[in-house]
Amino acid sequence: MVTPVNTQCRLAARPVGLAKPTDWTFTDQAVPNPADGEFLVRVEYLSIDPAMRTWMNAGRSYVPPVEIGAVMRAAGIARVVESRHADFAVGDEVYGVFGVQRYALADGRGVTRVDTTLAPAPVHLGVLGISGLTAYFGLLDIGRPEPGQTVVISGAAGSVGSVVGQIARIKGCRAIGIAGGEEKCRWLVDELGFDAAIDYKAGDLHAQLKAHAPNGVDVFFDNVGGEALEAALARLARGGRVVLCGAVSQYNNAAGGGPANYMQLLVARGSMTGFVIFDYADRYAEGVAQLATWLGNGELRSREDVIAGDVTDFPDALLTLFRGANTGKLVLALSTE
Amino acid sequence: MVTPVNTQCRLAARPVGLAKPTDWTFTDQAVPNPADGEFLVRVEYLSIDPAMRTWMNAGRSYVPPVEIGAVMRAAGIARVVESRHADFAVGDEVYGVFGVQRYALADGRGVTRVDTTLAPAPVHLGVLGISGLTAYFGLLDIGRPEPGQTVVISGAAGSVGSVVGQIARIKGCRAIGIAGGEEKCRWLVDELGFDAAIDYKAGDLHAQLKAHAPNGVDVFFDNVGGEALEAALARLARGGRVVLCGAVSQYNNAAGGGPANYMQLLVARGSMTGFVIFDYADRYAEGVAQLATWLGNGELRSREDVIAGDVTDFPDALLTLFRGANTGKLVLALSTE
Repeated sequence: MVTPVNTQCRLAARPVGLAKPTDWTFTDQAVPNPADGEFLVRVEYLSIDPAMRTWMNAGRSYVPPVEIGAVMRAAGIARVVESRHADFAVGDEVYGVFGVQRYALADGRGVTRVDTTLAPAPVHLGVLGISGLTAYFGLLDIGRPEPGQTVVISGAAGSVGSVVGQIARIKGCRAIGIAGGEEKCRWLVDELGFDAAIDYKAGDLHAQLKAHAPNGVDVFFDNVGGEALEAALARLARGGRVVLCGAVSQYNNAAGGGPANYMQLLVARGSMTGFVIFDYADRYAEGVAQLATWLGNGELRSREDVIAGDVTDFPDALLTLFRGANTGKLVLALSTE
Repeated sequence: MVTPVNTQCRLAARPVGLAKPTDWTFTDQAVPNPADGEFLVRVEYLSIDPAMRTWMNAGRSYVPPVEIGAVMRAAGIARVVESRHADFAVGDEVYGVFGVQRYALADGRGVTRVDTTLAPAPVHLGVLGISGLTAYFGLLDIGRPEPGQTVVISGAAGSVGSVVGQIARIKGCRAIGIAGGEEKCRWLVDELGFDAAIDYKAGDLHAQLKAHAPNGVDVFFDNVGGEALEAALARLARGGRVVLCGAVSQYNNAAGGGPANYMQLLVARGSMTGFVIFDYADRYAEGVAQLATWLGNGELRSREDVIAGDVTDFPDALLTLFRGANTGKLVLALSTE
């Protein structure tokens, strides 16, 4: 029997712009042994998220930065392979922030069991995981859309955006997605039931948004920032709400850039509000139950974009995200060998 | 007897940056006669407001732009000199948006009688007028400060900002003003009772704000935009509220610029909300009554910066504002000759 090795992806340097190969380093370590009250997991699926890029920067954010030399932070689905913990047994499939590595020790904090009979593991990183919960609480709690209102979503073909638009439809709103490319746009309208989709790569986002939201934008759920945010602000309806979930267009842009027309918030008597999903931890169960119900009765559709690979494929997987090459939740499935 | 003439200041061109002399034109017209249901006023005091600069631009805003060739929009205090209106008598002192001109016709809409026995006319353009009401509703309704919280105000020595800080103090908050120059800062602390004042001209606004608001900014009342807004966002406390009242640093800046660090709203779980005082018209009486009470019992102090001149001095008066040369409410008192 070959002795298993724990391959780890560590942050070697703080990237400027997109992460370069030299911003990462890989280490092989012996698989650790759980102490009393701990258990060992083997990671099977890694969640690839835009926010990861922000964790790589120094400075104040909603979580501490990943330190140079540390294993890169990542959420994942893993299987318990050894346990000295009363609540977790060998064979359990669990969700947790285990990092970009093959094995991890856990003491149970922040780890939840996932029911893979309900849906395959990657779905628990997507619609039934943090992505779905972010869509659910961000739209309903912060956006507060009312039936008949127009909800516009940037990054609409992503893991969060695709769920936001579907929930907006379920709640009787008009859902308009902004995404890159004809294929994604077709998917949003034909498969997910969005009322309209705008291909920002086709140009003149402002004119397209005006055509599709003639009465203005009541809720703008922003995953992207930049031009999309400015276009939505320019069309914000009276009392409109901008939900700040992400700014993927800005994460690799060291110069940064705020919305030049932010004073449209005054013109529209609108608001722009940020939120962090972790604050809703005590309501996750409510959110997952509702999302699972919708998923079960077909009102909500799930899509995962699963890349097969290994820990060493993580840097490329992250770049895939920033190329906008994925549709739905991007997941790196680690080979079972 | 000399026949009176109505001197008017009209917008000749849409300015780029600060308004130039050639952006204005002056016309002398015969004083008009009121029709049935109208009255004629002689304007005595013109309110000089930062927002005026925004009214000169084309494009969507909270009021239509002043048309090229039209009399420049301005609020003022005037005396009724001829009346064919049942509710307004010759000699009445009134507030209204009469424009930058010596005489104006009115039909009573948007015109209110002012009680100059309560306070001199200029105060009715300041603390007891739109400036005071903007401070009152903007801080209390949008900012919703709680006792003990830190309220930071940009443009703190201006007509709105100086009232915001005083109301914050009355409500048991810590009030920190940002203003330009030592003299203004001293006035805020020594005369108005602000807890601290930051001179942005002394440099390193971020460090000064950190020193004075070590626990973060709960409410930021923004009249200025630009660096002040970015500094406040960087220090926003958890759940902090940014009240967007103005962006005087941006009004003459065609390139514009949004807050590059707007995603601090996410980090802080904060919000940024715009408002327009006209929406509170049905609550003006409540606001004026409260402001007058505070003014009467000495909890609130008023200061007007009154320039004596004529209609033709309006362009210079407006530039005074953007030079930041005024302290308190800037008013142009038209000569009584």
